[in-house]
This record gives sequence, structure tokens and C-alpha cells, in this order.
Amino acid sequence: MPATMKAFVMHAIGKVGVIDKPIPRAGPNDAIIRTTAALICTSDVHTLAGAIGPRTDMTLGHEAVGVIHELGEAVRAREMFKVGQRVAVNAITPCFACDNCQRGYSSQCGGMLGGWKFANIKDGSMAEYFHVNDAVANLAPIPDDLTDEQAAYCCDMLSTGFMAAEHGNIPVGGSVAVFAQGPLGLMATVGARLQGAGLVIGVESVPNRMALAKKYGCDVVIDFSKQDAVEAIMRLTGGKGVDTAIEALGSSKTFAACVKATRPGGTISNLGYHGGEDESVQIPRKEWGVGMGDKTIRTGLCPGGSERMVRLMRLITAGRVDPLALTTHRFRFAEIEKAFGMMQTKEDGMLKPLITFA
Amino acid sequence: MPATMKAFVMHAIGKVGVIDKPIPRAGPNDAIIRTTAALICTSDVHTLAGAIGPRTDMTLGHEAVGVIHELGEAVRAREMFKVGQRVAVNAITPCFACDNCQRGYSSQCGGMLGGWKFANIKDGSMAEYFHVNDAVANLAPIPDDLTDEQAAYCCDMLSTGFMAAEHGNIPVGGSVAVFAQGPLGLMATVGARLQGAGLVIGVESVPNRMALAKKYGCDVVIDFSKQDAVEAIMRLTGGKGVDTAIEALGSSKTFAACVKATRPGGTISNLGYHGGEDESVQIPRKEWGVGMGDKTIRTGLCPGGSERMVRLMRLITAGRVDPLALTTHRFRFAEIEKAFGMMQTKEDGMLKPLITFA
Amino acid sequence: MPATMKAFVMHAIGKVGVIDKPIPRAGPNDAIIRTTAALICTSDVHTLAGAIGPRTDMTLGHEAVGVIHELGEAVRAREMFKVGQRVAVNAITPCFACDNCQRGYSSQCGGMLGGWKFANIKDGSMAEYFHVNDAVANLAPIPDDLTDEQAAYCCDMLSTGFMAAEHGNIPVGGSVAVFAQGPLGLMATVGARLQGAGLVIGVESVPNRMALAKKYGCDVVIDFSKQDAVEAIMRLTGGKGVDTAIEALGSSKTFAACVKATRPGGTISNLGYHGGEDESVQIPRKEWGVGMGDKTIRTGLCPGGSERMVRLMRLITAGRVDPLALTTHRFRFAEIEKAFGMMQTKEDGMLKPLITFA
Amino acid sequence: MPATMKAFVMHAIGKVGVIDKPIPRAGPNDAIIRTTAALICTSDVHTLAGAIGPRTDMTLGHEAVGVIHELGEAVRAREMFKVGQRVAVNAITPCFACDNCQRGYSSQCGGMLGGWKFANIKDGSMAEYFHVNDAVANLAPIPDDLTDEQAAYCCDMLSTGFMAAEHGNIPVGGSVAVFAQGPLGLMATVGARLQGAGLVIGVESVPNRMALAKKYGCDVVIDFSKQDAVEAIMRLTGGKGVDTAIEALGSSKTFAACVKATRPGGTISNLGYHGGEDESVQIPRKEWGVGMGDKTIRTGLCPGGSERMVRLMRLITAGRVDPLALTTHRFRFAEIEKAFGMMQTKEDGMLKPLITFA
Repeated sequence: MPATMKAFVMHAIGKVGVIDKPIPRAGPNDAIIRTTAALICTSDVHTLAGAIGPRTDMTLGHEAVGVIHELGEAVRAREMFKVGQRVAVNAITPCFACDNCQRGYSSQCGGMLGGWKFANIKDGSMAEYFHVNDAVANLAPIPDDLTDEQAAYCCDMLSTGFMAAEHGNIPVGGSVAVFAQGPLGLMATVGARLQGAGLVIGVESVPNRMALAKKYGCDVVIDFSKQDAVEAIMRLTGGKGVDTAIEALGSSKTFAACVKATRPGGTISNLGYHGGEDESVQIPRKEWGVGMGDKTIRTGLCPGGSERMVRLMRLITAGRVDPLALTTHRFRFAEIEKAFGMMQTKEDGMLKPLITFA
Repeated sequence: MPATMKAFVMHAIGKVGVIDKPIPRAGPNDAIIRTTAALICTSDVHTLAGAIGPRTDMTLGHEAVGVIHELGEAVRAREMFKVGQRVAVNAITPCFACDNCQRGYSSQCGGMLGGWKFANIKDGSMAEYFHVNDAVANLAPIPDDLTDEQAAYCCDMLSTGFMAAEHGNIPVGGSVAVFAQGPLGLMATVGARLQGAGLVIGVESVPNRMALAKKYGCDVVIDFSKQDAVEAIMRLTGGKGVDTAIEALGSSKTFAACVKATRPGGTISNLGYHGGEDESVQIPRKEWGVGMGDKTIRTGLCPGGSERMVRLMRLITAGRVDPLALTTHRFRFAEIEKAFGMMQTKEDGMLKPLITFA
Repeated sequence: MPATMKAFVMHAIGKVGVIDKPIPRAGPNDAIIRTTAALICTSDVHTLAGAIGPRTDMTLGHEAVGVIHELGEAVRAREMFKVGQRVAVNAITPCFACDNCQRGYSSQCGGMLGGWKFANIKDGSMAEYFHVNDAVANLAPIPDDLTDEQAAYCCDMLSTGFMAAEHGNIPVGGSVAVFAQGPLGLMATVGARLQGAGLVIGVESVPNRMALAKKYGCDVVIDFSKQDAVEAIMRLTGGKGVDTAIEALGSSKTFAACVKATRPGGTISNLGYHGGEDESVQIPRKEWGVGMGDKTIRTGLCPGGSERMVRLMRLITAGRVDPLALTTHRFRFAEIEKAFGMMQTKEDGMLKPLITFA
Repeated sequence: MPATMKAFVMHAIGKVGVIDKPIPRAGPNDAIIRTTAALICTSDVHTLAGAIGPRTDMTLGHEAVGVIHELGEAVRAREMFKVGQRVAVNAITPCFACDNCQRGYSSQCGGMLGGWKFANIKDGSMAEYFHVNDAVANLAPIPDDLTDEQAAYCCDMLSTGFMAAEHGNIPVGGSVAVFAQGPLGLMATVGARLQGAGLVIGVESVPNRMALAKKYGCDVVIDFSKQDAVEAIMRLTGGKGVDTAIEALGSSKTFAACVKATRPGGTISNLGYHGGEDESVQIPRKEWGVGMGDKTIRTGLCPGGSERMVRLMRLITAGRVDPLALTTHRFRFAEIEKAFGMMQTKEDGMLKPLITFA
């Protein structure tokens, strides 16, 4: 009889709960992690709402850290890790061996968005234990001077937010607009600063997010509920537009604003998830230079892998970024259903709730 | 009384003719070229139809070569050129000094698409003489072993077509689809070969263009009137899609097909002019990976400047590309109205008509 | 009692022979290949001479193709390959999981030059069977329309030669000098053409190599025994130097010539192995612009992995390159000692000897 | 009779003085600036010592700001500037029109290092007035909220220092070692932080420079007089070496240390001027991976142009960098000989002396 654990699952579209599941076992290249801290992500809210179709009793969660519980034989043979060691695991866990991984697009492992395995094509990490494929590449040791909570922010928030800036081709001293200052937009703001931006403009309307935008490095925050964001950006850039516009919301309207706010030769870097029913996302034709304006549109999905995780954790250790201001709420895993319910409504100004395990 | 010349002008939207104009004079940084050979471009057909708004007696044309007739004083001071020398001038003539030029986006000189001056913000080159701004950077000496006709193809056809491939991030041996095999699409095909593509797929339905597509380097040509191009590309690439899709038509539908035909991590390189009345060009949401598929969209306008022109002419001299198969018709300048009329209808399988001057 | 096979080994520095060894077995992520065709590489001559230190009865060889004989359990689980399938294996077999692999420098797997495992840190492939680590990423299926001999050229010759050109930052129509036209230099020449070079200058003095240089795409071949190569390159480029100089020999003197022959802003791309006793390789100070000339020096080791191998094989299938002109001699595996002996002296104009297995 | 001005000149190698010269006049594309503030650079000390050969009564200086005194007719025609306007001018003043400028290597304008015109091929800026070629591209308006002193630091210190980091291919959170923490090394340190480095290691032994290194962003400063710098860097990076090593001294020994301290796949970014008598700069052969370690060596010369200057000044305005801690001494122009003398000996801990004009 296999040992069991508690797991927070999506029973079906719109229906969650905590159930008992067998503790997963490690195949030759796998690891099993005992969870110590996790964060809830809005993606899971989308998933529960049906964004990726129906699932049955699938464990949710993809931002988690813990200690190594079991290592597969081929992982043990590499002698890089040992049971009991603290590790962080990125939300995206590529195989690093397939065509797309070899091409350098590991988030597209095996096919479009295929690096996203947790709470998509296998159980996620919002459970007492979780399974990690291709552990050699996906387990990132947590330095002693980093808390579990700090490390958990590297799994998705820092990796995705910073990616948007890294994709932005920001010249040193350049100008960046970050549309939406939710947790990922805020980390994109930090990312823009880390890429050398000389002017970072946040676009937001929720007061506590506007305040955090300033704290995390926006030089200016535009309240789009009070003025037209594109016009304001044009004013702030002498009519030129920004070098880089980051879409951190996932709205076709915001995406169009990004294209309009970007100068010729600039980059629109998308990190938002464009869900919904529409068949298309719109590029405004004229502001795109009728297809000849040297405006580049980049996209991407949270880059995974331990090597990047180590660099992200180093940035926290070194004091370059303090993600803890994103933690607005804290819960024990026993309270996960309550926490998730609040995340669905974003009530009480919730940004990121931290879930701790025994 | 200034000397006069014949110029082929757009009197107003839809109305062309040949008129007398004063031979232009050179300011300190300018040159005046006596035209020897020119090509008609479909862009001028669009311009005449009103694509860039009304114009009055503006000389058309932007693909021309000739001999230096006059040099401005600051140009003479550089001692790089002499009157009587054969030169080619790119369709795009940036100042190379403004912000966008310094950033490396010289086609966006002074503002979006601002490098495009001929037959847009000043008289074009379909005249016995034409004016060249910033001549030091824009006059490209024609090597002795190149004909005027060959050189004329560098002004726009090679520069723009190759640009699409250069923007494509094609891995060596990679796969490329070029949608539409008109003159620019054909040169994009050559460009894809010059960037190391291992599989070049042309998409076309006009028989003589399909034949030229093969001649210019397509490994396969898909007749989109007989089969779905995206499905055919998927079949040819083992279900993966191409590394790079080049849009060489300027149609929202074709652009969408490009996004669909491109693999995750691949690039959609647009060279088509997206005119028309629609407010937007559509990105198919799902095939774009809901904004996270690592698909990049690049755009651009014919890159100008003498340095590039010299490299393009070298490729003809060295036998890497023979553009002359694009010349389907030849006319004297006295027959320009007839030639332009045929270009409007593309009758008689016209691709590029060469216009020669006395 | 394990089944045995014949293997061509380095008994010790300077001493080779054929011995019986057990057929290797596959761990969970491995594959065992039954060899069908192989090429001898000059690197093995260096190895035998002591370049990487002493070895005892190590099987030589790293350019080989064959059929799958055994697959490890984790490889079988991916269901990508089956026993009996024809595959090519790159000379470099990275794990694709470690830090350097994740960074995109898979040839430096686990540490400097660590992707080079065959005939370095484990037995090579000049045997009836050979072992492949991390098989999911390192086995490349050979298309039906490619012979074993053609595929074998992808293992090192095409991969390394083309790499040198890919590292060269060659502008379309740009100029390239390839110093030395041995097998790798010749493939660098092909690579330069595949990267769009408009002028490819070969530097060589051996007549049959000079002839092949022309065949493989050099526009000009400089016989450095008759004239100074750098001066000749300067003359051919109007005193500017080439955009890219490729060092395909591994000589400090040739490396210095590359720096001298490269224009400011150009790239020196090294593929040569710089062995020998000297502590340093010299950069000529003045021609390097006293450290400020915007000249970039790139280096690299044969890039491995199946994804690249598939692209390289596609280039042969598509007729972009025909490597078979490099095969100057053919031998049965029973004659391996004779073949290797000739490779040591390069007698009879030997470039690449093909070894076939029963 | 032309108006005259005071100019600080190099009479001959080793001999300086202040003399009267005519105020320069503007050709069509030029501007004349009335100097308000300037900095002395160690380059001028090298120049005086004969580094670029003999000069006669050449005005020294290349880091200066001022107000527009005269504009050439072609500059006036652009209507971008007006007499009396405050402007900064980069040390490097490319034409932005020649081949190398068009290629994006404007510091190599017209030939190797040719963008360097001040105090090299024409009079420098350490005078009451100075001449600026190609003024449209080289005059950068100083924002109202920036002092002349702040702006003067953009002319060379920020531009060159940051360039070294921009060339470094620093991954976000990556590790950087900056060898030597003089004024340029300190700005390279700031640059490394602006490029997202997670660990910046300074190498220095002079106490006040070590203190500034910490202030400007080094996480660790290694005193190379007390320990081996390469060994210390290896220890700090877990034996791997840094992603990027910046050479900010111009010593062959330091350059070799940079190669040794860099991990495979990393970049050595040189900004130091490698003068002296030696014919070569040495690459340590083994630590360079015998030419196959994927280590890249970049070089460059202070990037010029107004577009970059505007971005650099924005970084000061926005508080990203405060260069004023580099100003250790202040002088009136009347005291220039004393100031220059101290710069030659670096006595009294001199880093940068500010020279102000009436």
C-alpha cells in the first residue's frame, strides 16, 4: 500500500478540493520533492475556469520549493544532489533533450508550450509531495541565506517577469513601458531596471499596485483610468514612443496599446496570457508601420531550468530584488481552499498568497 | 532660366503623366544623378492609387541608377565621388545622422518609414535627373563588370527581399516558407538560400511565378489555389512548422497563415506592405501560443545606404544571384506611361519592366 | 560471458592496434550503436601523439554512423527510436542537462571541452559497436535518401566547419577569408557560402586542396607559399580587410594573420585546435586596434546534438553541399591500421578515409 | 583678423602649454562650441607621452561640454539646435555616413579608431572653444536638470565604461569581474549592474579606488596585491569562472587574467588601451580552451553620437548613476597646466579633475 499525501486538486472545471493521493515515485530521471512553501498563481485560476480544457482530480500549483525526498537512479548516478537537500523547481520543467530544447526554446519542450507540465499535463505542486521530471536539469539548490519564500518567487514571478525585459532589447538608458503592474508586471518592472532602462513607465490603476510599481522601480506610473496611456507615454517620450513595451496583462486592447506606444525599431515584449474566445489578437495596422516599421513582437513562456534559477536566486541574495513585498497574505496548506478562493476574486488586495507546509 | 527635364509624375490620385520640370540642384550634402536605367515598382502603383494620400505632380519612381551630374560642396570635400561616375541609389535614402539612424534603424529615419523619401516626401527617380540627399552615405559606385540593369535590382528588390531572410533568424539547414513569389518574394527566396536554409518552400499560384520560384531556389512550391498552404507546410515539416515564414504579399490572411505555419521559437518576417482600410492585422491567437509560444514577428522597410548596396552588387558580380530573370519587359523612358499602365494590371505576366534612358 | 567486438585502440601514446573488447551495454539513458561507416579525423592523430595525455587501450574515433543495437530503458520510454534504425551520432555528445548545456554551450558540457567524450573520456566509435550517452538528444535518424558515408560527414566535418562560419557574423554579401583548406577549412568555405558571403577567399598551398577550395566555393584561392596572404587579402578588399577571417589550422601564426586580415568591426572565428607547447597564442597588438578596434574573436568546438545533425543532413539531401569529394580513400575496418597510418602522414593526398564495416 | 582663444596644447611629445589660437569656424556640417566644463583623461597623458606619435601645438582634451557658438549652414537647415543651447559632445565624433559607420561601427569611422578625432587628428576640446564635425549627429542637448559637470561624464567615462558591460553578454543574475577600478573600471562596474549582473567582482589594490568600487556596485573587491585575482574569482564562482571579465587597465598580464577568469561560453570584454612596445597581447592557450572553449573576446572604443549621449544623460537624471564621486579635484581653466601635471602622476589620489571655464 503506497504512502499517501494531501493534494489540492481541480476535480473538474470550476471545482476544487483537497484529496488523498499516493506519494509519487521517481523514475530513473525523476525526483520527488517534499513541499515546504508554495505560491498561488493566477494561471491556476484560469486553469480551473477551463482555460486549458477539462481535467479530473489534477493537482494544481506550479510555484513551489521543498526538500528532496527521492531521486531516480540516473539522477543519483550524477551525484549532484542528495536526499534532504533544499531545492527550488521552476514552473516550467523542460526535458532539455528534445528538438525545441536543443534549439534553445525549452519552454516549448516537445511542442508549443510543452515545457509547462505542472498542473497541465501532470499533477502540479500544490501537494505535500510533487514529482519533477528530468531532475538533473530542473532541481536548483537553494542557498543557505535564502528563505523558502524568497526562493519560491523565482519559480515563475521572477523568471517570467524578467524574461519580458530580457526579450525587450532595451538599450542602456532606454525607455520602457510596462502595461499592468500585477505580480508579473511588477517583476517585469524590476527586470527592466536590471536591463538598464533609464525610464520605466508603469501603467496601472489599482492604488496598491501603483504604489508597488514605484517601489519596484517605475519612474512614472500612469493611471490609465484617468488618462490615455498611449498619449501619456508619447508625451513622456517627446512624441517618439518607448524603446520597449511590455504587455503584462493578456488583453488584446492592451497589446494594441503596446504596439502604438512603441517607437519604430522598438520591441513589444508579450508575457500576458491571451486567453478568451477571440480568434485573433489585433496589431494596429498603421502604428505597426503597415508592416514595415521595424517593430518587433516577442513572446515567451516562463524560462525553466536550474541554471537560470540559480541566477535568479543570486539576484535576491545580492539584494538586487526583494520579492517579499508581493506576499500580501500567508496561509497554512490546511487553509489552501480559502486562499485559492481569495485568489479567484483578488479580494483584500491580494497579490500573492504564500502557502506553507508543516 | 533653369535647364529642364522630363519627369514621370503623379498629377493627383489616379492620374499620371510626363511633364517638364527644372533639373534639381544640389545643396551642400546632396547629389544630382542623370538617370540611365530604372525599374517600376508595385509600390508606385499603390502610391498612385492613394496609399499615402494625395500628391501634386510628384515624380514617381525609386529604383534607379545613373551617373553623377552634380555634387554638393560638402560631398565634394570628402573626395569620394566624381561627376560622371556610375552610381546606384537605394530606394531608401536615410540621413544616417538622426536618432533612428544612429540606433541602426535608418529606414525609420526621422520617424516611422521616414527613410522613404523618393516619391513620398520628395520627387522620385523616374525622371531624366533625380536628387539624392545625404549623398556621402547614399551613392554606391557601380562596379565596371555590372550593368545598369543589374545594379538597378539592388535598389529595392534585393535589399528588401534579402532583408526578409536576414530578419528570419534562419538556422543553418533550417526551413523557410516564403508566401507569395512576386519579385520581392522571389528575392526573399534567394535571400533564404543565402542565409543557409535547407528547405525553402514557396507559396504561389501563378504559373510563371511558380516556375521562377523553382529557378530562384525553392525546393518545393505549393500552389495555394489547389491545397491549403499551412497544411502542406505542416506536412513537409513533419508537423512542426517552419523555422521562418516570410510574408511577401501584404495581406492579413497571408500574415495569419505565416503565424500558423511557423514553429514555436520561429520567426515571422514581414516584408509585405499592409495597406487597405482595415484597422488591424490579425495574429491567430492559438497558433501564436496564446502569446507565449516564443514566436517572433519582425518587420522592416528596404534597408538603404551605400555600404549595403556595395554588398548586394557584389553578390551579383560573384554570380550568387542573377536578378535579370525578373525583367519581363523593356521600355524606353518615352514609353513610360505604357509601361506603368501594364504594371498596374500586371498584364502579359509582367514582373519588372526595365526603363532605359537615352 | 559478454559478447565481444573488435576495437581500434590507442594502447598508449604513439601505439595503436585492434583488440577485442566487450560490446558495451546501455544504461537507462544510453544507446549502443552497431557501426556501419566511419571517418578518421586528424584529431585522433593528435590524440595518439599525446595531445590530451596518456590513455590505455582507449578506442579511437568520433565520426561514425550505424544502426541502433540497444536502447536504455529511459530512452525506450520516450518511444522516439527503435532497434535497427539507422542513426548518426555527432562527435560531441553533450548531456544537455548541466549548467553549460542549459546556457547553450553544450560543447562545454560539464566543463571546458567536456562535450567531447568519444576517444577522450570514454571509448570512441572506431569499433564494431559504440556507446552513446544521453541518447534521446544525441541520436539523429538518417533519412532514407542519405548514404551512411554522407551522414558520417555531418558528425564533425560539416558541424565544425559550418560553425566557424556561423560564428563569423557575416553580413549578406560580406567578405570572408578561410585560412587553410583541409577538410574542416573546406567545410568552413561551404559554410561561408551558406551564410551569404559575397567573396570567399581561401588561403592554401597544397594543389589538390586549392582545387577543392575552388570546387567548394572559394571565389579566390591565395597560395600563401607564393605571396603574403594578409597583403593579398588587403588588396582583394580594397585595403579594408575581410568581414570575417576563419582560422582552420590551429597555428599561432595563422591566428595572427587572421587578426591582421580582418577589418575593424569584423570577426575572427577560430576552429583550429591550438595545441603545442607554447603558453600563449598571440594577438597582434596594433592590428587589433590596441584593444579598441571592435574586432571580435570567437571560438568553439563542434556543436553536437541530434537537432543540428538533422539540419546538416538536410543540407546534403537538398544538394546544398556534397561532402563526398572529401573522401579520397576507402578501406574496410580490417584495414584500419593501414588507413590510420596513412592519415598520420597524409600521404597520397589523403583528406578523409572512409572506413566501412561488414 | 580672427578672434582668438586660449587653448591647452601639446607642443610636442612631452611638452604642454597654453597658447592663443584662432577661434575655429564652422563648415556646412559643423558646430563651434564655447566650452563651459571639461574633464582630463588619462588618454591625453598617453598622447602627450607619444602614444599616437608626434603632434605640434595640438589642443588636447576630449571630454567637454558647452554652449553652441556657431552652426554650419547645413546644420542650421535641420533646425534642431540653436546658438546658445547647452550641449554635450562625445569624445568620439563619427561622420555616421562612411562604410564603417553604416555597418554600426561608428567608432571605427573611416578606418580603425577613426571616430577618435579630438586631440588625435584635429584639435581637442581643452580650449575656450572647440570644433565639432557632423554636428547633427554629435551635439547632444543637455537637459535642464543636469549640470555641466554631470554631462561631461557622459563624453567618455559613462560611454566607454558602460560599453564594456554591454559587450559582455551578461546573463541576468550573471557574474562579472572588472579588472581595475579606475574611472573607466568604476563606470564598467556601474555598467555591469545596469546589465543585470548578480555578482560583480572588482579587482583593485588602491584603497580609495577599492572604496569607490564598493560604492559603485561591486559585491566583492579583490585586492590583487594580497591574493591571486584569478584564484579568488574561481573561489567566488564555485570553480567555474565568471560569465564576463572586463579588462579596464590595458595590460597584457591583466588581459590574460581575464581569459583565465572567464568560464567557457563567457566573454572577455576589453576596454583598456593596450599601448606599449610589445608586438602582441597574449591569450593563455589552455585556459582559452586551445581555441575551442567558446570564450569570446570583444573590444571597442567609446561609442559616440548624440542618441547614446541622451540615454547616458537620462541615466544620471534618473538617479541610476552618480558620476560626481569621480571628481576628486576642481580647477579653473587658468590652472590647467597644474591640473594636467597632477593627472600625469595621479598624485593626491586624483581620479578625475574637473576644469571649469569662465
